Amino acid sequence: MSNFKILEQRILSEGKCLDGGILKVDSFINHQMDPDLMMAIGNEFASRFGNCDYNKIVTIEASGIAPAIALGIATHKPVVFIKKKKPSTMQNMLSTVVHSFTKNADVNICVSKEFLKPTDRVLVIDDFLAVGNTTRGIIDLANQAGCTIAGFGFVIEKVFQKGSEHLLQSGYRVESLVRIASLEANTITMEK
Amino acid sequence: MSNFKILEQRILSEGKCLDGGILKVDSFINHQMDPDLMMAIGNEFASRFGNCDYNKIVTIEASGIAPAIALGIATHKPVVFIKKKKPSTMQNMLSTVVHSFTKNADVNICVSKEFLKPTDRVLVIDDFLAVGNTTRGIIDLANQAGCTIAGFGFVIEKVFQKGSEHLLQSGYRVESLVRIASLEANTITMEK
Repeated sequence: MSNFKILEQRILSEGKCLDGGILKVDSFINHQMDPDLMMAIGNEFASRFGNCDYNKIVTIEASGIAPAIALGIATHKPVVFIKKKKPSTMQNMLSTVVHSFTKNADVNICVSKEFLKPTDRVLVIDDFLAVGNTTRGIIDLANQAGCTIAGFGFVIEKVFQKGSEHLLQSGYRVESLVRIASLEANTITMEK
Repeated sequence: MSNFKILEQRILSEGKCLDGGILKVDSFINHQMDPDLMMAIGNEFASRFGNCDYNKIVTIEASGIAPAIALGIATHKPVVFIKKKKPSTMQNMLSTVVHSFTKNADVNICVSKEFLKPTDRVLVIDDFLAVGNTTRGIIDLANQAGCTIAGFGFVIEKVFQKGSEHLLQSGYRVESLVRIASLEANTITMEK
């Protein structure tokens, strides 16, 4: 599907490229957030997954929460966020290890069994798809829970990091609102 | 102000008390989230702070994000979330240390200077007010930035942990949607 124009324009006007293929969108997506844009993103996910059968939205803290809750507001479906640290009050949790390149560390991600059930069909939402390490961790948690993943929705996909390949090969539906072909020479090139 | 009834009822019916004055609301507030309830919370904050002059909403990851973005959607004001780990891409950041009882650790919290300016009047939103350590950290960051805190809004205040005392003594406005008087004997007692 073609890029979501409102978001594409915003990335082109306010996004910043750093060395090493890093795209900073922290003035409107993942540090400071524009709630009107978030709600537009939520509505766009709702529309793109309108024919998809899911009963729950799953994301991962922290920057996945805003687009996921916006989709939740649009669809009235519950949102579960996977945690990056086990809270002292959490029991019966499922966990796995994910390597984070942004933080240069292995991160233990976890979710309570109570909120991922074998009967759940979940739509996974996150802000970025890069190499796809986080999605592998989420698939692992979903497999442990025995629930079904109905699809993956990303606000921004860095296509050149090929994170969607393993998802598509495994038969998952993937919708990225904006697909970036390249950040070479610190220039944002959108996929045609 | 009296408790926000929709939320009070939900806490009484679905909240769980654990030993040590812990209230679990992770089936609808801070692990699994009910987006309709979150939007009602956002609208209630918007209404309670309707006469308050602020141009920006500030919260802290992760469980503050959903109520803060709901208020942002209701008011069309930008939302900044303070981070608990410095991302490798963040420059010009302000930081301070907060002790987290839930995680039993000192946490470095940080925010980019770019998004907290001396001209900003910020409304601080968080899910819980307990002893108030996090709010002390946020006040420190706001002081470093030179911005003004217009008020504090909490989804749930554990009144018996006295976190609002230092805020009120410093002259801040505090609005908590639900004020819990006690969790003694693992029973939720609302403030009258």
